[in-house]
Amino acid sequence: MPTINHSQDAQDRYFMMLAIEQAKLGLYTTRPNPVVGCVIVQTEEVVGQGFHPKAGEPHAEVFALKEAGDRAVGATAYVTLEPCSHTGRTPPCALALIKANVKRVVIAGLDPNPQVAGRGVKLLKQAGIEVTVGILTEQAEALNRGFLKAMRTQMPYVRLKIATSLDGRTAMASGESKWITSNAAREDVQKIRARSGAIITGSETVIADDPQLNVRSNQLGVLPEKIPSPQIVVLDRRQRLEHSAQSDYQLCRRTDTIYWRTDDLTDLLATLVRDHQCYDVLVEAGAGVAGSFLSQQLVDELIVYQAPCLLGDQARPMVNFNPISLAQQLRFDIYNYEKLGSDLKLTLLPL
Amino acid sequence: MPTINHSQDAQDRYFMMLAIEQAKLGLYTTRPNPVVGCVIVQTEEVVGQGFHPKAGEPHAEVFALKEAGDRAVGATAYVTLEPCSHTGRTPPCALALIKANVKRVVIAGLDPNPQVAGRGVKLLKQAGIEVTVGILTEQAEALNRGFLKAMRTQMPYVRLKIATSLDGRTAMASGESKWITSNAAREDVQKIRARSGAIITGSETVIADDPQLNVRSNQLGVLPEKIPSPQIVVLDRRQRLEHSAQSDYQLCRRTDTIYWRTDDLTDLLATLVRDHQCYDVLVEAGAGVAGSFLSQQLVDELIVYQAPCLLGDQARPMVNFNPISLAQQLRFDIYNYEKLGSDLKLTLLPL
Repeated sequence: MPTINHSQDAQDRYFMMLAIEQAKLGLYTTRPNPVVGCVIVQTEEVVGQGFHPKAGEPHAEVFALKEAGDRAVGATAYVTLEPCSHTGRTPPCALALIKANVKRVVIAGLDPNPQVAGRGVKLLKQAGIEVTVGILTEQAEALNRGFLKAMRTQMPYVRLKIATSLDGRTAMASGESKWITSNAAREDVQKIRARSGAIITGSETVIADDPQLNVRSNQLGVLPEKIPSPQIVVLDRRQRLEHSAQSDYQLCRRTDTIYWRTDDLTDLLATLVRDHQCYDVLVEAGAGVAGSFLSQQLVDELIVYQAPCLLGDQARPMVNFNPISLAQQLRFDIYNYEKLGSDLKLTLLPL
Repeated sequence: MPTINHSQDAQDRYFMMLAIEQAKLGLYTTRPNPVVGCVIVQTEEVVGQGFHPKAGEPHAEVFALKEAGDRAVGATAYVTLEPCSHTGRTPPCALALIKANVKRVVIAGLDPNPQVAGRGVKLLKQAGIEVTVGILTEQAEALNRGFLKAMRTQMPYVRLKIATSLDGRTAMASGESKWITSNAAREDVQKIRARSGAIITGSETVIADDPQLNVRSNQLGVLPEKIPSPQIVVLDRRQRLEHSAQSDYQLCRRTDTIYWRTDDLTDLLATLVRDHQCYDVLVEAGAGVAGSFLSQQLVDELIVYQAPCLLGDQARPMVNFNPISLAQQLRFDIYNYEKLGSDLKLTLLPL
């Protein structure tokens, strides 16, 4: 059994944290690629850093090695995702690391992409490079939930966002609903949209609110025009948004909007992965659509923005579904909770 | 203008914090008296500490001075509430401090009790003692919300407690509701009951749940039998709990239960202060009673235990009230939020 070198472990965690910070710089722009960060460390000093900025552009390792130059020889490379072993739009990164003569590679987690899946590690080891896998895996994987789930299961990671009052209401019975949650909550939604490959909404929401569902914030660290627009999907089973009605709504004027006209949401999600490379999917819709996704167990993460107000028992419910008994309730684990402006943001994982 | 001595201020805050910790030891037992803590400090050393344990027993200052003995001469006394100036069941504490020859008295906040109200400070100053008022006032006042509000307004401080799901539901349509919130939440309710002079419930809750509404936890730091039982009030406007029905329900078997049979909740609250010296009132009832208190603006603090589950749109609402428009919603400020077991506890103040 190998003994654990505690000071090396602490160092590995520290430099992997820096690599994760690098990876985050690509959070809104790499789709459909995963975000990856890389840090090259020569005798405890960072000599190169990089992140993958965008599909078609070089990977994180290439930028970091370029910055390190000759100082990469004998260095340790920290990478948030297993270096690729295949030639895609760019040559394989595992080879770049070998060519640069690094001594050791530390990897947060393996790449489940069938084109990689351990082959990157194998290549490195065959070249005599020491490889450590599993440092800050959870933190690194949190940045690539969609990519990782899609590679593993061919289904996307689905986030369902709901803005609600304390008594679980989204609008008055009349539909009146402006300003339930604060600016800070709406700004946070921009971040979730910006990392989503697709946004699903319902025809009812389109007709009632005529939303744009676009990324328009200037507070994301990246200009909104640099962020790939999420694929818009409108659930329109009852064909309420036939061609003639489409010019009335902002989302319908887009030529790439997908109208989904069957009941089969599982098929929709599989289609988004298979045909559109949409791995992170955000559902922003009304109580009916939310209820369908939730009761069909299609939600990976429920995000609730909860305004500290009571709208009363006649106001509109946040989720339409009707369990027969308490045993059929939907239960969650509170993954995170924080105050955002005057509201609470809850991130919940289905149990 | 006096200059601020920063190190003295920091020291004052530190010792007042200790006095507040002392005061907390009486939190469940002093009713109807306020909780008070006292710390005597001689050249930066704590030489005496005390708290008021129970109505009829000595005040905090007496215990602290007794422990300090001769070392109180020239010392500074930290008291969480203005020392009393009147002879009640015990002699005035201001005189005890004067007699002990303390040099300085630091007070978190004045006592609005008309029998004190600045007279304690005046007595001390007349005796040549230096007096500082206003150190950690908010923290100290948080321990005596009911007492302070009642002395100022002759109305009690009303806490409304609701246990609810994420979608604002308290039970299935059928009434089925066991185990919505966790043990930790129910244990926390024990703490709120233990500091309440009265608990108000509704006849509907009595008939449906037959609750005991008693303090029975062994985790309060004080044995439950040492804690004065809160006065039970049952709202029974429709006289559903006439004498013949009373033996069916645990609360009704108590001889001191008050049945309130008018609509006038303001009158009830005023009566609880005037006739029963109940200054902290807890409302534990169903959605109807909650809606009445909230819509009549009689709630000072809304405490929500929120279980991370969805019960569906047919389940029972947490509050029955029906604002005509969004402008009539009830809004709150989130005063505190914390995770309790698997649930969230929100403490909200009406805006």
